[in-house]
Amino acid sequence: MQNITIIAAPGFEEIELLAPLDILRRMGVDVTLAGLSDTTVIGAHEGSITADTTLDQVDMSTMDALILPGGAGSWVMKDSPAVIECVQQMFMDGKLVAAICAAPIVLAEAGIITGKNITAYPAGPVYEDLHAAVLHKDEDVVIDGNIITGRGPGVALAFGFAVAEYLGDTLAVEKLKEQMCYRG
Amino acid sequence: MQNITIIAAPGFEEIELLAPLDILRRMGVDVTLAGLSDTTVIGAHEGSITADTTLDQVDMSTMDALILPGGAGSWVMKDSPAVIECVQQMFMDGKLVAAICAAPIVLAEAGIITGKNITAYPAGPVYEDLHAAVLHKDEDVVIDGNIITGRGPGVALAFGFAVAEYLGDTLAVEKLKEQMCYRG
Repeated sequence: MQNITIIAAPGFEEIELLAPLDILRRMGVDVTLAGLSDTTVIGAHEGSITADTTLDQVDMSTMDALILPGGAGSWVMKDSPAVIECVQQMFMDGKLVAAICAAPIVLAEAGIITGKNITAYPAGPVYEDLHAAVLHKDEDVVIDGNIITGRGPGVALAFGFAVAEYLGDTLAVEKLKEQMCYRG
Repeated sequence: MQNITIIAAPGFEEIELLAPLDILRRMGVDVTLAGLSDTTVIGAHEGSITADTTLDQVDMSTMDALILPGGAGSWVMKDSPAVIECVQQMFMDGKLVAAICAAPIVLAEAGIITGKNITAYPAGPVYEDLHAAVLHKDEDVVIDGNIITGRGPGVALAFGFAVAEYLGDTLAVEKLKEQMCYRG
């Protein structure tokens, strides 16, 4: 079984966190939802979730992938040395690092997207942080090696399915899309 | 400002609850997330949320719409006299009643969908409960008067946008779709 961690930082975008979690647990992936410093985390639109644990309790060496949801929580993660270290370690170990919306700024801060193909939320303040990457502004989801990026909340399902396909098999993901009434 | 209630019953489908909540709060709608009997509610894929209140604390006469997410929580809501009464009252008052995935079975139990055009999750056990309605099995979202139904988690965003459009103005919803990078 694959193990992944999703980080829940205060101000996380609700759809961007819950869609990948939902899809990956349906796929049988062991998803650990890790609060940044607390297990109770409030999202960008006042959605309050309880995480399974906190990031400092997670042994990242046992993880196959790391997912960073976007929203205001992106800036909180960018300023967290623990998150930056976690991103760098996962990337250097060849594990999957996935970020959506504004969260690719965390990958930029970690210095792992120089020259990489990525997408991100189409806003100036986000793009400024991503100048070292090759930005595909109109793409919903971009995969470059072990980095997957997504554009925004409207493509959170596509982003979740892309992560599932990276970790699992295409046939099972196609079946899941049908089960979830997804036509994207 | 419009007021709406979303009911969180144990086993709710995470995407189906959070997508409409997220979209409607972005639209400036006052969304009350009401737990069925408790404010801590666990979803179908172990997503744990904290609701704003419980259903018995909500004055439904002040509400413009009621949203029922699907998932296993649909059967819990179907068996709840409080939810059935709430659905019937909202419907009779001409307010919007919206249900997605398996949750249209709650509308069937409330006796409000006889002869109505609806869609629902494509599964036999769900369809059996909906025999009195006119089922549009291949439609993602169906609107019939003050009833909106959605097919499943893969169309939760489309369902949320349909509710937002019913309550607000089309132009604002189109703008929001763009802001959320939604192309559906």
